[in-house]
Amino acid sequence: MNSTQTMVKMVLDRWYSQIKNFDNILNSITDKQLQKEIAPNKNRGIYLLGHLTAVHDDMLPILNFGDKLYPELNEPFLKLPDKSIIEIPSAKELRGFWSEVNGILTQQCDSLQPDEWFQKHNSVSAEDFSKEPHRNKLNIIITRTNHLSHHTGQLVLIK
Amino acid sequence: MNSTQTMVKMVLDRWYSQIKNFDNILNSITDKQLQKEIAPNKNRGIYLLGHLTAVHDDMLPILNFGDKLYPELNEPFLKLPDKSIIEIPSAKELRGFWSEVNGILTQQCDSLQPDEWFQKHNSVSAEDFSKEPHRNKLNIIITRTNHLSHHTGQLVLIK
Repeated sequence: MNSTQTMVKMVLDRWYSQIKNFDNILNSITDKQLQKEIAPNKNRGIYLLGHLTAVHDDMLPILNFGDKLYPELNEPFLKLPDKSIIEIPSAKELRGFWSEVNGILTQQCDSLQPDEWFQKHNSVSAEDFSKEPHRNKLNIIITRTNHLSHHTGQLVLIK
Repeated sequence: MNSTQTMVKMVLDRWYSQIKNFDNILNSITDKQLQKEIAPNKNRGIYLLGHLTAVHDDMLPILNFGDKLYPELNEPFLKLPDKSIIEIPSAKELRGFWSEVNGILTQQCDSLQPDEWFQKHNSVSAEDFSKEPHRNKLNIIITRTNHLSHHTGQLVLIK
């Protein structure tokens, strides 16, 4: 295993492990519990689930894996704070979207060769990338893994 | 910048950015607020601060940077859950320990050459490392960055 393969494995192992950890917590929480706030006057569990789904869905175009599956989640879960829109998808629907988005991400991630992870992603210009080669596809996984950890730390409080 | 340097930069950038983010939140919280629970019947802010300090302090021997500075934090913040011991260091003391531990970690991290990050750390045997080269020093930074993100997501709720 060369150092590029090692690095990709380190980052993807952590990503998959955080997804699995989040899924275990999510599966132990009922739809009713998801309606609760994680702490008084803070986001509800269902908002965190919608927010994470929308952020992971955004990774598809950023990583050149295809179009977003659920652009309708942008407004309620990325642009607006929790409780600004009364009609949002149900917990059951969001669980399905979450699983679908991560399934496609996994499939696409597994198809990339180690070297391809060090290519530029679609949110950086070719000019900027030539000066900042760390703004590559693998870095998207690193930042999104930390984003997921941040909200997993919150979701676990709902139990 | 070669690919090893790029990989190390990606991981360390994220680590330092998470520390800075945590510090900004910590600096915006009073000692009195730190005594509050992050959510009803959950850990107090001061416990999270002690816990993170103890975990980061453990990184010194794991990364071969030297002995732990504050082994007395193991019992109250690693072995035992919150509120099991009445006498713990004050918020003011813990803020100082936290800053001290991260300062030394930064100093030591900055002195490592990119290739050295792919060497084995002290919590893995030479035999295991020969089969699992991803269990290197850089991987410790990746996992601890995610650990920090997890608890940062919680501390921010105290405000």
